[in-house]
Parts: sequence; C-alpha cells; structure tokens
Amino acid sequence: MRAPVSPVKVLRHDHEVATEADDLLVSEEPLEIRLGHGAEDDRHEIRLSVTMRTPGHDDELALGFLFTEGIVARASDVIRVVPCENVKPDERGNVVRAELRPGIDVDPERWQRNFYTTSSCGVCGKSSIDTVRAHRTTAMADRPVLNGTMIAAWPERMRAAQTLFKHTGGIHAAALFDERGEPLLLREDVGRHNAVDKVIGAMAMNDVAPDGKVLLVSGRAGFELVQKCVMAGIPVMAAVGAPSSLAVELARQSGLTLIGFLRGERFNLYSGRI
Amino acid sequence: MRAPVSPVKVLRHDHEVATEADDLLVSEEPLEIRLGHGAEDDRHEIRLSVTMRTPGHDDELALGFLFTEGIVARASDVIRVVPCENVKPDERGNVVRAELRPGIDVDPERWQRNFYTTSSCGVCGKSSIDTVRAHRTTAMADRPVLNGTMIAAWPERMRAAQTLFKHTGGIHAAALFDERGEPLLLREDVGRHNAVDKVIGAMAMNDVAPDGKVLLVSGRAGFELVQKCVMAGIPVMAAVGAPSSLAVELARQSGLTLIGFLRGERFNLYSGRI
Repeated sequence: MRAPVSPVKVLRHDHEVATEADDLLVSEEPLEIRLGHGAEDDRHEIRLSVTMRTPGHDDELALGFLFTEGIVARASDVIRVVPCENVKPDERGNVVRAELRPGIDVDPERWQRNFYTTSSCGVCGKSSIDTVRAHRTTAMADRPVLNGTMIAAWPERMRAAQTLFKHTGGIHAAALFDERGEPLLLREDVGRHNAVDKVIGAMAMNDVAPDGKVLLVSGRAGFELVQKCVMAGIPVMAAVGAPSSLAVELARQSGLTLIGFLRGERFNLYSGRI
Repeated sequence: MRAPVSPVKVLRHDHEVATEADDLLVSEEPLEIRLGHGAEDDRHEIRLSVTMRTPGHDDELALGFLFTEGIVARASDVIRVVPCENVKPDERGNVVRAELRPGIDVDPERWQRNFYTTSSCGVCGKSSIDTVRAHRTTAMADRPVLNGTMIAAWPERMRAAQTLFKHTGGIHAAALFDERGEPLLLREDVGRHNAVDKVIGAMAMNDVAPDGKVLLVSGRAGFELVQKCVMAGIPVMAAVGAPSSLAVELARQSGLTLIGFLRGERFNLYSGRI
C-alpha cells in the first residue's frame, strides 16, 4: 500500500531566519477506478475516472464515489473493490477495480458525458438539484435528536481522531457520528469530496445505516458534498465552514438538516431544525 | 449577470439560544463551457465541461481553464469568450462559448477521455507530472527577488481585498502580486481551482506577463493548483495552507518556487529559493 504521508526536507523561515527541517506532507496520488464483471479483463473494463486522492481506504473511496455520484443505484450493486494487478509497476496501488453484480450494468452515457450536460437537464441551479433528486434511490433516514452541547463537541472529537492532520496540518476530514454524538467513522483525504466518499463507502461496506447519523466535514459545505450526503440518505450534515447558496437550496429541498460555521457553542442552522 | 452572493434566512445558535438572522452565502452555480468557431451554432459546438463556480469573471474562468488544462496550447488560441444566448431562460448566464481562432482545433481525445487515462500515460505521480510537462508550452518566467517582509505582507493584502469573503466568510481566493509585492489581480470563487483559473484568464486577457509574478492562494497547495501555476509559467506560488507531496514534486521538477504555511513572518519553503 502507498503511504498516506510523505517525508520532505523543507526550509523553515521565521523572521528572516531559515532552518532546514524535516516535514511530513500529505500524500497525493491519482487513483483510477475501473468497472467490470468477474475476473480482471482489460478488454471488457470501463475506465471510469481518475481522482487525485490520499492513498488508503481506496476500496471505500471507489465504492462511495460510484454510489454518491449515482453511477450505481445501490452500493450493493458492487460485489467488491480490488486493486488491479495487471498494471505497470509504478502504477501499482493506484488502480482499483469495482466488480459489479451479474446483471448490473452502468449506463455509459452517465459517465462519458458530464453529469450535468445530458440532454435531459440544463445548466442552472434548479436542474443541478433536479439531477441529484432524479438519481437518488435512498430515502432520507430518520433524524437524530440533537442538542447544542452535543453539536458543539463534534469538531473537537473529530480533530482528536485526525491522525494525518496531526502530522501534516493539511488534510480534509469527514466523520460520521451516531445519535448519541459518538464518532463511528473518520476518514482523511487531500480532497474533501474523497473524505466524504470514503466515509460513505465505509458505511456501505460495514452495513452502517444512515438512520440517526450525522456527517461532519472539516471545511466548507459546497453543493457536491451536500449532494453526496443526500445521495447516502444521511439526515444531518454539519460543516466547520460556510455553505454555498446551492448547497443550502439542495438541503432544504431534500429535507437535510444543514449546520454551518460550527465553532464552539456557536453555529448557523441553514436547513431543517434542531 | 448572476449575483456572486445570495441572501438567506438563517437560525444563529449561540449557547442554546437561537435567533433568526439574515445571512449572505457565496453563490454556487454550474457554468458550462462550449468551444466553437465563428457565430454561435449548436451543431458544431463542443460542450466541453461543467464546473460549479461563483458567478462573475466567467470569461476569465473559461479562458484560464482552457489554457491551464492544456486544452488550448496558448491563451491567444481563443479569440473571445461570450455568454451563449441560445439557451433556456433559467440557464442564461450559466453557459459561455469560447471562440477559437480559425485553424485552431482542439483534440477531442484531450477532453473526452480523462486527462490522465490516455494511452500514453499511466496512473502514478510520475506520469501525472510527465503529463503536465508534456502539455506545457509556456517557459517558466524569471523569478522576482523576494524577502521575508514582502512575503509576510501578502496574505493580509489579499484578505483586505477580498470583498466576497468579508460578506460570506466562505470563499477561496487567488491573488497575483508583482515583483514589488503589489497586488495586481484578485479573484474569489467557491472553488479554489476556479479562483486560480480566473486570475490566469485575467492575465491573458490583460496581457499581464508571468515574469516576476507571484500567485498566492488562500487555502492549500494541491497538485492541480501547482499544475495551473506551472502551465501559466508563473515562477512563484505561495499558499496559506499546506502543500501535498505531489505538488512539491511537480514544483521541484518545474523550477517553481513553492511557499507553504504562510502565516505572519513564518513560512516553509518547499521548492526553489528566496
């Protein structure tokens, strides 16, 4: 497996004084996701996409991506995700293959064309939201009962569990909490959407239902992160940073409780209720 | 033109007390980029991509994207970028068309397939870097002479100019500084790569050469941001946050001076020299 952090020599400058030091960087490598049936076979595989990600939990990332982007209708359409063996030596560990259940096929139109530019939908906020809603097969799960003290504790609990952040100071995180405010899953990645896909992929692989759950993200709540949360049916999303206009619109239309600017005992409620 | 910020009603929670308040969110809307020759003509246009962006400077965004992704070899291959008129009413303002110079054609392979998965390159960090280098037509420009005091001042000067951040608290920025440390251009966007594309597009539209310039980004320095900086030939990039492993590798191989964790008089030098 490729390492999630990489050592590097760096010059630390501090008030005009430069000192050579050892630093740890978050690793960033491309991951190619392929789709197929049965055993590895180059001729009948779809090379779906490449995403820049931090190595680790690649199977979860692939599964979460396929599910939250609506490429497969259910996470259970994927039997397993395995590393591809038939690749060049320096690509090893950067190519995975999702094996689809017999009878499950993906629509090439769905991945060849851009998600938004199919003939059936236009290019406006409304049509982006309609597209998410059209691809969603999971009903929104029941909301947990929340209170301010529980909510205020989430960021610190997430930060305490962020091992890669401790080493590098530069990585996004997504965490899943249960209805008692206990952390269930935490994933870190150089890409914020990858961290969310890893959590949602891990939920599917470990049969964790979205009922009563909360997804917390370390950064901002953009449209694409809210989209992933809605696709997975997780009823509450919280972000340390700000949401965007379209993220709030999608949350309101989907019945997602959306919390933003979560800092200490203060936060903004953009959608739903506490 | 669509507005870059959107008003929203929000419940502010503070130590268990909730108050209804007016808030401003950063707008996020899809932008479709089309390519063509001559007058608008649906049949002969390439629908290139859709990106979620904050409205404003859409022409710069499209031009910067086409150039930094290597879809056109030179920014001057694009005559102009104009809003498409022949779209549905609610898509108006979200579709632009880049008009290519006569004789300039883009390679459909370049945009239909993923940037990394062409037959000529593999899926590893090395091949990602090779791909950037292969697509680069701009030589790295001459570096400015830097000093610690000048560097320390960049983030505050950028922040002072960030009007959208002041209103929303949630938006990325990219700024271009000249060799005296003076800000030349600042762009804000919900997507960090869009903010960089807007600055680079604006450079092209205003004939601002990369010589002696510095690009500052408000967040982290991932591979794709460093790639854009290298493609544009800007010799110095600075980030308030951390770089990734592959970003540092690309910077070192490209002769880009890369500064990270820029906070007050402290920063790390990951590549190049001051």
